[in-house]
Amino acid sequence: MRDVDPTVRDEPRINAERLWRSVMDLAAFTESDRPYTRRVFSALYAEARQWLIEQFEQAGLKAQMDKAANIVGRMEGAVVPDQVIMNGSHIDTVNHGGRFDGIAGVLTGLEIARTLRDHGIAPRHSFEFVDFLGEEPNNHGLSCVGSRGMTGTLTAADLARRNPEGECLHEAITRAGGSPDDLDGSLRKDGEIKAYVELHIEQGKLLERGCHDIGVVTDIVGIKRFRITVTGRADHAGNTPMNDRRDALVGGARLVDWINRTARAFDAEGDAYFVGTVGRFDVTPNAANIVPGSVDFTLEIRTSNAPLLDGFMAAFGRHWLEITGDAAVALDLEQLSDTPGSRCASMIQDAIRDASDSLGFSSIPIASGAGHDAMYMHGIAPMGMVFIPCQDGRSHCPEEWTEPTQLAAGADVVLHTMLRIDRET
Amino acid sequence: MRDVDPTVRDEPRINAERLWRSVMDLAAFTESDRPYTRRVFSALYAEARQWLIEQFEQAGLKAQMDKAANIVGRMEGAVVPDQVIMNGSHIDTVNHGGRFDGIAGVLTGLEIARTLRDHGIAPRHSFEFVDFLGEEPNNHGLSCVGSRGMTGTLTAADLARRNPEGECLHEAITRAGGSPDDLDGSLRKDGEIKAYVELHIEQGKLLERGCHDIGVVTDIVGIKRFRITVTGRADHAGNTPMNDRRDALVGGARLVDWINRTARAFDAEGDAYFVGTVGRFDVTPNAANIVPGSVDFTLEIRTSNAPLLDGFMAAFGRHWLEITGDAAVALDLEQLSDTPGSRCASMIQDAIRDASDSLGFSSIPIASGAGHDAMYMHGIAPMGMVFIPCQDGRSHCPEEWTEPTQLAAGADVVLHTMLRIDRET
Repeated sequence: MRDVDPTVRDEPRINAERLWRSVMDLAAFTESDRPYTRRVFSALYAEARQWLIEQFEQAGLKAQMDKAANIVGRMEGAVVPDQVIMNGSHIDTVNHGGRFDGIAGVLTGLEIARTLRDHGIAPRHSFEFVDFLGEEPNNHGLSCVGSRGMTGTLTAADLARRNPEGECLHEAITRAGGSPDDLDGSLRKDGEIKAYVELHIEQGKLLERGCHDIGVVTDIVGIKRFRITVTGRADHAGNTPMNDRRDALVGGARLVDWINRTARAFDAEGDAYFVGTVGRFDVTPNAANIVPGSVDFTLEIRTSNAPLLDGFMAAFGRHWLEITGDAAVALDLEQLSDTPGSRCASMIQDAIRDASDSLGFSSIPIASGAGHDAMYMHGIAPMGMVFIPCQDGRSHCPEEWTEPTQLAAGADVVLHTMLRIDRET
Repeated sequence: MRDVDPTVRDEPRINAERLWRSVMDLAAFTESDRPYTRRVFSALYAEARQWLIEQFEQAGLKAQMDKAANIVGRMEGAVVPDQVIMNGSHIDTVNHGGRFDGIAGVLTGLEIARTLRDHGIAPRHSFEFVDFLGEEPNNHGLSCVGSRGMTGTLTAADLARRNPEGECLHEAITRAGGSPDDLDGSLRKDGEIKAYVELHIEQGKLLERGCHDIGVVTDIVGIKRFRITVTGRADHAGNTPMNDRRDALVGGARLVDWINRTARAFDAEGDAYFVGTVGRFDVTPNAANIVPGSVDFTLEIRTSNAPLLDGFMAAFGRHWLEITGDAAVALDLEQLSDTPGSRCASMIQDAIRDASDSLGFSSIPIASGAGHDAMYMHGIAPMGMVFIPCQDGRSHCPEEWTEPTQLAAGADVVLHTMLRIDRET
């Protein structure tokens, strides 16, 4: 821990080396045979959270677990203590995940707390640093458990979800230290949280490719998923002439091509982020010598502009018959899910951009194509996000990487964003 | 058995009712819980073959098993007994197969033998009626075992193939009554078989749709199979903009569309039969939220015109890069198999057509898109095939069906084809 120099009090900077060391310390809590794996509700996860609570307390925070089993480290505000500026993310990982996804955000919070203490800075509002319970998809089939819990969007049906071992989510949250019986409604009063700011690796390549330090997130995109079934007729591939086929794969392939071309056009034409993906695609009966009888695939569209999505699906509905053409197939379309997009608060976007500028970091506006805890916090608070570059856009894998200087830049920007909001509101 | 009327001696007709009853009798040899299943090398198959041997003997044939475990029922020729006019097919089925595929051909032979005996007809050449061992793909991974064995094309590697239970094909053939040690070279002398004629259900819809009684098979098509691997890059479907993707599914889909359109054009333009099929198509990692990283599929081309096939693959090689276009994928192509086509002998095609005409049945020339024992017999003898209609083109399923009158017409055509060849050569 470095000594506090009162002359830098107005321009505090985080300790890059200390932050990096914390990331590596937390990374050590991993299943040894498949780094980096620290699944929510596991014993390893509980150990890592105990370590985090100790770190929070050593940084001078009051660390508590809320009813949704989120760890909240709190620094009491000097002027308006009942209003909160919150920072958060998560420390659970997917299987074979990385050392930064989520973790970088939580440890940024820890490092900010240490820096404020080092510099003797007492913010006007209360500052809270949160480790949300289980953000990654878990084996109960739910993600963002803690942020759903804090914002009152965890339903009775969610709590009843059982994992393959038969434990329901209610029991798992209890085991993690929460009180799931008391999760009706938001855990926070209306207007209590003045701003929520989350740092995360980009999980894309725009920052790296453009040599930008900081992404000022504009939106977390809305996601709609559809299941599309194309039905033709399975026939012997030897004895069925070309003009007598109803080949479901040919029909499905033409739809995949159209979806790709049209999504490219929608993305290129408008200001909004737009991606359309067919990621899962299953053929039946899937044998070399049988004309495919049916194809079943998932269409996923993510965009910050909901009307654009509706326009895309309307075009799909108008044109699928001519697209599939002489494949002579039938089509069935079912909506699987609809997660609305979340707009980041202008006030927070401005604060992030101004903080970057004043610290000498370059920034660009960027849409988040992935979901984050911030998406749920958007329901009860103005929300913003800071993206930092990650190497080659890779994430959810052991190779996931961000440079110590890139992480430090992001942490400094979050610190100064929180201080700006603290000062100006 | 009907009485023989000497006035119809020159125009013998098979007994349709007796033939149909034999088909139903043989159908009863099935696994009871999944009709119609009679797998080669099973106890049921052995029982059915024992029944067939008895039927052959009751019809006056000398029934023997050859070294390849084919059942051969022989009627000695009156003038040139050392030259054979042969009829054959198989009585094994796929799992959940039908009552006619193969079976119709073998029992047509049985019925012809009975008819010749009823009418006191002694052919000039020896007539042989064959039940070839295991024509359908078996769990040793080989088809047409008996016709390969008879024609000297069963290799040591084939005989060493083991099924999942660990029994090699050599052992299985021995168990079936063959002598696989003595299968080097053809089991028949050069020129011994003057003609081989096989009746089979069409397994397509051309006869039914055109209301034709008889298909005069012109060719058994050649089959080439290729494994094509399209490699892109797996990326997060949320955070990877459309113009930064290398989507293997999009590349693969465009190839599937091109293959279909081009195969249609090749089939429509030329006189030759031409079909191109992508029947197996696997996507990796195949998850809704991941841009597909690779696609692996099988391209199967069947045609009676080998140069056309070469032209197709040359066009594929020239154009794949522009077809896949902005999907920016790499491609790997591997040939899996190459089974040359077999041309039916003009002499036998003529005899089948003339026999149909004289019996008052309509006939059309037709290519066989599927392989048959006749394909191997082509290696040692002039070969021809008679197709009969089957309902809705369905085959390899319990619903497989041909009408008793359609089967009888085919059997009469085979009988008169054999008699014509017997008389005219």
